[in-house]
Amino acid sequence: MSSVLIIGAGGVGRVVTHKCAQLPEVFSEICLASRTKSKCDQIAGEIQEKTGRAIQTAAVDADNVPELVELINRIKPRMVVNVALPYQDLTIMDACLETGVHYLDTANYEPLDEAKFEYKWQWAYRERFEEAGLMALLGSGFDPGVTNVFTAHMLKHHFDQIDYVDIMDCNGGDHGYAFATNFNPEINIREVTANGRYYENGEWVETKPMEFHHTFTFEQVGEKKMYLLYHEEMESLSKNIPGVKRMRFWMTFGDAYLKHLEVFRNIGLDSIEPIMFEGREIVPIQFLKVLLPDPATLGPRTVGKTNIGVIAKGRKDGKPVSRYVYNICDHQACYKETNAQAVSYTTGVPAMIGAMLMMTGEWMRPGVWNMEEFDPDPFMAALNKYGLPWTDIETDIDIDSLPG
Amino acid sequence: MSSVLIIGAGGVGRVVTHKCAQLPEVFSEICLASRTKSKCDQIAGEIQEKTGRAIQTAAVDADNVPELVELINRIKPRMVVNVALPYQDLTIMDACLETGVHYLDTANYEPLDEAKFEYKWQWAYRERFEEAGLMALLGSGFDPGVTNVFTAHMLKHHFDQIDYVDIMDCNGGDHGYAFATNFNPEINIREVTANGRYYENGEWVETKPMEFHHTFTFEQVGEKKMYLLYHEEMESLSKNIPGVKRMRFWMTFGDAYLKHLEVFRNIGLDSIEPIMFEGREIVPIQFLKVLLPDPATLGPRTVGKTNIGVIAKGRKDGKPVSRYVYNICDHQACYKETNAQAVSYTTGVPAMIGAMLMMTGEWMRPGVWNMEEFDPDPFMAALNKYGLPWTDIETDIDIDSLPG
Repeated sequence: MSSVLIIGAGGVGRVVTHKCAQLPEVFSEICLASRTKSKCDQIAGEIQEKTGRAIQTAAVDADNVPELVELINRIKPRMVVNVALPYQDLTIMDACLETGVHYLDTANYEPLDEAKFEYKWQWAYRERFEEAGLMALLGSGFDPGVTNVFTAHMLKHHFDQIDYVDIMDCNGGDHGYAFATNFNPEINIREVTANGRYYENGEWVETKPMEFHHTFTFEQVGEKKMYLLYHEEMESLSKNIPGVKRMRFWMTFGDAYLKHLEVFRNIGLDSIEPIMFEGREIVPIQFLKVLLPDPATLGPRTVGKTNIGVIAKGRKDGKPVSRYVYNICDHQACYKETNAQAVSYTTGVPAMIGAMLMMTGEWMRPGVWNMEEFDPDPFMAALNKYGLPWTDIETDIDIDSLPG
Repeated sequence: MSSVLIIGAGGVGRVVTHKCAQLPEVFSEICLASRTKSKCDQIAGEIQEKTGRAIQTAAVDADNVPELVELINRIKPRMVVNVALPYQDLTIMDACLETGVHYLDTANYEPLDEAKFEYKWQWAYRERFEEAGLMALLGSGFDPGVTNVFTAHMLKHHFDQIDYVDIMDCNGGDHGYAFATNFNPEINIREVTANGRYYENGEWVETKPMEFHHTFTFEQVGEKKMYLLYHEEMESLSKNIPGVKRMRFWMTFGDAYLKHLEVFRNIGLDSIEPIMFEGREIVPIQFLKVLLPDPATLGPRTVGKTNIGVIAKGRKDGKPVSRYVYNICDHQACYKETNAQAVSYTTGVPAMIGAMLMMTGEWMRPGVWNMEEFDPDPFMAALNKYGLPWTDIETDIDIDSLPG
């Protein structure tokens, strides 16, 4: 019997729960918990209808270790799948250590008061997990997650040495609104307006926001402008892919999307500093959030596809090799299966797969680990089986020669 | 002794008061009134400092006829210069009729509940003013106002027949902000996002917002994109310029300005419909107003020039004639003289000139009148004398052949 506790009932939580529920032979008992129990109950109701399976639900404040410990002790899962907020990774890891259960998440810990995407806080738990005989799998979403596994797969099967890695995340979805964000606008806007960063010759090179961009033609999506950003999987990949010379991350944004962000910034509508309005303080970005469509309502109306992949260049048997591995995911197909669009689906499915490989023992090893530190083969096979099929091809694409 | 009561202490009120104070031989007593007396006192203080003249100030609610009547009876002016809000034209005209004083304004009456720029409400006062032996001069600003006078001047001196009139309003000022409005954002945004309209062969032709545009090179400003809008002076000019075939109005807007308006519209930030935010109703455009720079603060930081003029085409002695009359006004020079920038200055100076011509009797005639119904010569002379010098040239510009 392997029981799992899923914490977080947003779009990703919905997908993980749906997918785990489809695998009763692995996840015999499922409990879904979040601050707002009614959100869990709604997802449980959907699953009951689709699969006939009953999912347990619970309310929990994931900032509160004793509350988490109490819940885990009551549910007695073998592992926790954390798809709550990134601010809550450490409290949940603490609770896992205290109760002796394994841990998985999809995004690294961020302190609430500084916008830093870094693994250092979670890597610091390594010895404690090892000594407790427990495993923590970090970043088992799509990016980070599948992109790490794609890279490990290429290194295992196609390369002696990878020199250059470019990760490309394209969302070609259209929700029909002039502007909306796929998740919390505050996090979304911060990601885009921050400085970029890439890894080269053992060092991190900082860029201005959106300083580097190229126009790339993504299969089944079409031509999109992609921008160099920092993204967290590069931190572990740059350590775990021996001798890699350069590693970059690119994300596509439409001109209209960027135009809206620019205007918000110009007039201070994205500000987190309160201003006085009719005698009381209002935080502009909170007001903006109310104006914008609720990200949760985008699912049924989003059409189009995502295409996320990795291009690696290096050598095999002394000869140059250049490979491209990618997944294409259709928003409407995801919605039909799980009531969530592809942005949630592509994160939730790898979370389920990571948990499955831990449960079956294929990826079970005490300590705190990143995705590329395991054999990619079972994960790659599971991606094909559980809704995220991939393509692995030779490529002659040279990103730097693409138009800006 | 001719005493004047100026109602309205915004940017235009400031300029009118400064300019009237410079002409003690015409305006022997000046009272400046507005809802907020402290704004009047500040302007009075500036004038005291610049000219040594003492200006009377008063508080008045211009929506309230009895309050206006009480003030007029106390001050006993010969005329009222109304530079308050367009919603308040009729109450002030009522008060003038009741107290037996002349009236002048710079913008036609608009009902609060419908965005209609029409003279019908004020023209309906014609008989009452005539019978009372009182004069009301409508639209004595720049546009309407000076643009009407420019047209009358060309008809008097250069044409037997004017066939085509194009009025062009260019503000080349730069306040250094990514986005700000020169006056109340609500009115400003409504003007731009409304359908356009022009007069052709006895009829009004409606256009989509910003449907027609041309790139025009304005003297001392440079190349600007100008857009066809409806503007109120066309209503009276189309009646008072006999046989005119077509009349259009163009205003320049920068791409960045329009981009901001488009984004506001896309997310509903320009909406006047309240939305719920943290338990109470907030009108989005009111919140936007608080985010944007206060228009009153733009004066000291605005540099550059305005260029507003009229191109007329027609015949004289059977030969084709094409003329262009325009004024160029420098924001910083205006600010130095009156603590207000050119947008206020170009409206306030013609208001003073109209009042002066009424006081001296040159333009005194009982009834309700538009600007082009008087001899343009004394007004044109006064423009040169009091800060808005004009140029009157032949032109071969064909707007329709300009690039879009």
